[in-house]
Amino acid sequence: MKLSETINRIAPLDQEAMQEARQRWNSIAKPLHSLGKLEDCVCQIAGMTGDSNVQLDKKALMVFCADNGVVEEGVTQTGQEVTAVVAENFLSGQTSAAVMCRLAGADLYPVDMGIRRATGVPDYHVRRGTANMVKAEAMTREEGIRAIETGIRLAGVLKRKGYKIAATGEMGIGNTTTSAAVASVLLSCQPEEMVGRGAGLSSGGLERKLQAVKKAITLHRPDPDDPVAVLHKVGGLDLAGLAGFYLGCAAERLPVLIDGFISATAALAAAKLCPGAKAYMLASHCSKEPGMKKILTYLDKQAVLHAEMCLGEGTGAVAFLPVLEMGLGVYREMSTFSQIQIESYQELK
Amino acid sequence: MKLSETINRIAPLDQEAMQEARQRWNSIAKPLHSLGKLEDCVCQIAGMTGDSNVQLDKKALMVFCADNGVVEEGVTQTGQEVTAVVAENFLSGQTSAAVMCRLAGADLYPVDMGIRRATGVPDYHVRRGTANMVKAEAMTREEGIRAIETGIRLAGVLKRKGYKIAATGEMGIGNTTTSAAVASVLLSCQPEEMVGRGAGLSSGGLERKLQAVKKAITLHRPDPDDPVAVLHKVGGLDLAGLAGFYLGCAAERLPVLIDGFISATAALAAAKLCPGAKAYMLASHCSKEPGMKKILTYLDKQAVLHAEMCLGEGTGAVAFLPVLEMGLGVYREMSTFSQIQIESYQELK
Repeated sequence: MKLSETINRIAPLDQEAMQEARQRWNSIAKPLHSLGKLEDCVCQIAGMTGDSNVQLDKKALMVFCADNGVVEEGVTQTGQEVTAVVAENFLSGQTSAAVMCRLAGADLYPVDMGIRRATGVPDYHVRRGTANMVKAEAMTREEGIRAIETGIRLAGVLKRKGYKIAATGEMGIGNTTTSAAVASVLLSCQPEEMVGRGAGLSSGGLERKLQAVKKAITLHRPDPDDPVAVLHKVGGLDLAGLAGFYLGCAAERLPVLIDGFISATAALAAAKLCPGAKAYMLASHCSKEPGMKKILTYLDKQAVLHAEMCLGEGTGAVAFLPVLEMGLGVYREMSTFSQIQIESYQELK
Repeated sequence: MKLSETINRIAPLDQEAMQEARQRWNSIAKPLHSLGKLEDCVCQIAGMTGDSNVQLDKKALMVFCADNGVVEEGVTQTGQEVTAVVAENFLSGQTSAAVMCRLAGADLYPVDMGIRRATGVPDYHVRRGTANMVKAEAMTREEGIRAIETGIRLAGVLKRKGYKIAATGEMGIGNTTTSAAVASVLLSCQPEEMVGRGAGLSSGGLERKLQAVKKAITLHRPDPDDPVAVLHKVGGLDLAGLAGFYLGCAAERLPVLIDGFISATAALAAAKLCPGAKAYMLASHCSKEPGMKKILTYLDKQAVLHAEMCLGEGTGAVAFLPVLEMGLGVYREMSTFSQIQIESYQELK
């Protein structure tokens, strides 16, 4: 599916289904809106699918894996080779996100968007890692579009497999550096606001990371109003794939969970490409990275989980799944005021 | 078990078990402390039980149900009769917390601490509802102590049944009013900071609630340094029972989850009775009630869930259970750096 075609397919939420969902909530024998954001999430999902009979019985986590040339600049604790090792561990279930997916009952799909070496991970690579953005554009514009369109395609795959909700995840050494570059350009803010310690960087590494982001932005001067340019010049294959995935989910009316900083940066790029896509996104957690809050504010999303997590892989999004399902359980199974013969709270106001 | 005896039994956390748990976390193949507060919770639980082999396979929610005479003052949306109806619905599984317990795999124990009429709910009542605190002490000091000791006893019951973690819940029309009175005395703050809309009170009701809290405090002038006095004069049977339950859990080294405002107020009373009890408490969510943050700050707890929930019944604590278990799943099942042949992150700092 072409990018422009996908953007054209993204429609507003179904207001009638949302209203039906709100009425259902208000009829349930409990104080009005007392499940707060969980109620709002269920209503929003009703609007996405156009059906107030909300179900989340089939859940997936898709993990976009790719390497980033900027790692040469000493912006990370580990080398690029770790991306491939962890990506392969997804296949054997030996990652944190894999453990959490088993507990959440979610199916795990790692995808190779551009790991430097071939792995056993399902191969959607556009190129084998990006160039070092401090010295050259991370990828060509054509490659950036191909990565976005790959993400769009993957959303379609999940939809056709019958998934009711998709969680986003990523694995790519160096991708908090590229995310900081992309987010600071798209939000026109100082890189200082977006550069954080990622997986636990030292102070020296943090300074190198900041300088790398600044150098890349100064070198390429990507136009903030051209998200594709931002993604291909100072972004990554994982970010571009994820941005496309958000657009694809919106076009397919498939609810999609934002994970942490990297995933939120891709959501931001998608929202810049098509503001209507925001309505199909749900926040899950607020990560420890300093730029996270600013991005969620731009997206007009409020995260429920505040656990100071910064693991990546989609762990925050997956951790939110059972919480969302608890809210949904009350929505689907709980008795109404009329069934249990209590006067409804709202009538007594 | 007597109150004073229970307090004497409460011991500090086992530092060695906590250190072992931290070492285990640090050996797992993921960035250091990247599961944030979930890691801290697991370490704290190890310290509680004295065993770094943390398990949460048997979970309970105990819901303390009681009536409050202050409801006469027009401080609630519904009448006292609703307490009994909802308490009975716990038995048939028709409450929000019951639905969520099924999803979380937690066993549900409603207990009658003093509902006005007899119900089928397991009977631990100290008296059939409290007096209206605006006109008289809610209960006698002796009744207050009996309610606390009942809570202590119930913690022992759960421990003997083999539960590994207890979530706290309550059901009692009027109990955000009593909680506001108790919390504002114990924290020496203005009632305005603690009085909120509870289950969705109108502005007129909110003003009556504030006046009732002020009148009760002015009438009884409970000594902030005597938590038993605060509980029996302006508290409730549910609050006193819960306060005892926290102390009992601490004495039994049984991890206990704080729910929302009412549950946190009882935790505050327990912490005032025995500061060492705090170490056995874990925060779950930050409710919408205005005083919640202040109480959690006093208790030195940070909630993970921020969903603007205000349902009560233990719903916030139960919603946190699967999140905690996801963290625990990584702790128990995830490979270490040496197993998957990645250099550990910390060595590269």
